[in-house]
Formats: sequence, structure tokens, C-alpha cells
Amino acid sequence: MEDASRISSALMRRLPRYYRYLLELDRRGVTRISSQELARRMRLTASQIRQDINCFGGEGQQGYGYIVAALRDRISRLLGLGRQYSMVIVGAGNLGQALSKYKGFGDMGFMVRALFDQSERLAGTQVHKYTVRPVSQLAAYLGEHKTDIGVITVPAEHAQATCDALAQGGVGAIWNFAPLDLRAPEGIKIENMHLSDSLLVLSYKLTRQ
Amino acid sequence: MEDASRISSALMRRLPRYYRYLLELDRRGVTRISSQELARRMRLTASQIRQDINCFGGEGQQGYGYIVAALRDRISRLLGLGRQYSMVIVGAGNLGQALSKYKGFGDMGFMVRALFDQSERLAGTQVHKYTVRPVSQLAAYLGEHKTDIGVITVPAEHAQATCDALAQGGVGAIWNFAPLDLRAPEGIKIENMHLSDSLLVLSYKLTRQ
Repeated sequence: MEDASRISSALMRRLPRYYRYLLELDRRGVTRISSQELARRMRLTASQIRQDINCFGGEGQQGYGYIVAALRDRISRLLGLGRQYSMVIVGAGNLGQALSKYKGFGDMGFMVRALFDQSERLAGTQVHKYTVRPVSQLAAYLGEHKTDIGVITVPAEHAQATCDALAQGGVGAIWNFAPLDLRAPEGIKIENMHLSDSLLVLSYKLTRQ
Repeated sequence: MEDASRISSALMRRLPRYYRYLLELDRRGVTRISSQELARRMRLTASQIRQDINCFGGEGQQGYGYIVAALRDRISRLLGLGRQYSMVIVGAGNLGQALSKYKGFGDMGFMVRALFDQSERLAGTQVHKYTVRPVSQLAAYLGEHKTDIGVITVPAEHAQATCDALAQGGVGAIWNFAPLDLRAPEGIKIENMHLSDSLLVLSYKLTRQ
């Protein structure tokens, strides 16, 4: 495993972006790139790039630059890619359904294994390749299937209870789309996608222009 | 208009969260709150809370705390709420459809006015209350309907062209769900929702535990 001790929280959040750019460069057949050129594309400074890459242990050569494939592989390992993650989605409403159908996650190794919903109306219906399961079966499912990530796409008022059930069932991480901050036991990683918060940042910026 | 000059980019991103907590307190009938109690709920420090609220011009009283409704209204104004924003969504795939159906945006004043898609198969079909329009009509639509926000939910390879068309059509802001960084003319605000990046942060955290 890489030494991640020098990776700050801010750099951690930049890693997926580096990964995207390096994937794209590789796709285009670019085999090496200078910090200046990468900086220009990513709209960072070259010194920021060199500092970041140094932190995650990449090596460049003066006048030669970085080897794209090597850097991409290093970041891929740091991000924990190259293995499969099992996911369950709780909340088969519009957003839960959209996420369950998104092919891109599977391409990166994030496999949606099951889709749950509280509604008796939805349970048993077919969404993409999933038969929606009643949330009353979530605990039993998690007991039988080791699950890495629980995705929460239920309304805010049910989100904390869903989080509790996922934690109880032993998931390692929660990807939360509900518009509230969850409380989970120590050790469970939470990543929020607060759509409404993001939209409010946009209206803030629009109002200030 | 409030004086926003003391609001840092980090505080700007905390504003929607303050707003959520204050809305919730108000809903529960809490009329005033101390910085200590708000800090406990938001898992910030009381001194951070006082500094933030001071920056956006809220006033508390020693031993009395903040008036919830007043603080909520102040943040609401800062966020540019209390008016309507017109939105168009470009990309009527799973995510675009899910966003077009989400009631919560309209409740905050963000009104989806039209839904576009490149696919001839989708154009003319009904999604929720929208008839999907062909993207070839986007320029004409924007010429006739002043639009505040363009939402991009097309695949990555079409996102920059969509951004260009929205900018050309005079939108003030772009809410981008495509997994790439867009280039837009000066003055157009961009807010990204990079779902895959967020998932990669989660796998990074899972790998480090």
C-alpha cells in the first residue's frame, strides 16, 4: 500500500480529478506530460502539481515530465480502485433508480447488488435489473451479503434510520444523498452528495454577480 | 443587499448547511439558540459559529443567543432565495429525468422549465410534466425564455458543447453533473456535482481504514 500519510484532506479531494485527467490523457495516447502542461489543462499552477504529485509519491524527471500510465496507476491504487465494491441502494425513488441504472459506477468497480425501498407499492417491482426489495429485508440481506457501501436516497426524514440500519448491518461506508448530516458510529466513512446545498451555492453566486 | 464581502469561499459552502439547520430548528418551534447549542448540533465549535455568523452580519446577544427566524431569513437572503430561478435540463437520461421530477427544487424556487435531449428517440416523449425537446431547439428556446440556470446531465463527450450552447443562450449559471471540468466564458457561474469523484473519495477512505 502507498504511503498516504502526506495526503491532506484537500489533496484527497483533488485525487479523483487528477485521475480523470490522466485517464483522458492515456485514452488520447499521451504517454508523458510536464507539470506545466498538466497545470495548464487542470488550471492549477505547475508548482501545485509538482507538490501534489510529490505528496502521493509520483516521480517526474527534469525536462522529461511524468509518465502518464505510471501516475494514473499510482492514483488508481491510492483511490482503492482495481477491486470490486459491493453497494446497496436504499430508496428506489427517482434518484435511487437513476443511480441503479448508471453504468459508469460498475465500470469503476462499484457494483450495485440490491435496491431497497420502504414503499410497499415499489417492493417487488423491477427497476433495471433489480427487483426492488422491501426495506424490512435490509438487515437480513446485509447479514448474508458483505456490503461495502450503502447508498442513501430516501427522503430526509428516513435517512438517519436508514443510516443506522446500514451501520448495524456492517457496511463500511455510506454515500448519502439525503439533505441532512448523518450520525454514524466511529469508523464508518460518510460521503455526502447534497444536491440542494450545491444549488444554493449556485444561487448565492448568481446573486453576487 | 447584504454585505457579502467578508464571506470566504469556505463560508459560502457552509451557508446552505446553516440554512438547513435553521429551517429545521424553526420547524420544530425553536425560536432562539445559543452558539454552543448550534455548535453541538452542527458539530462545529462555538467560536467558529460566532465568527461565521459575525461574517454574514448576524447578531447574537450574550446569554440570549440568536433569534432563529432572523438568522434563517438573513441566510436565505444571502443565498439569493425568495425569488424564482428558471432552469432548463439538458440530458433526459436517468439523472436528468430524476432531477426533473424532484419536487424539492421547486419548493426552494428553482423551477425546471424545459427538458432537452439529443436523442431523437426521446424527443417528444413525456417525462413527468415535460415533453422532451430536441437539443436542436435549445438555442431558439433560450432566445425566447430568459433562463437562469442550465443543468447539464449529458454524457461527458457532449458536455462542453452543451455548456457552450447554454452560455451562448445567455444562462447565468451552469449546474454540471457531467464528469469533466467545463470551460465557460467569464461571468458564468459553474457548480459541479461530480458523482464519480465523490464515490472515489469514498473508496479512498475505505481503503485507508
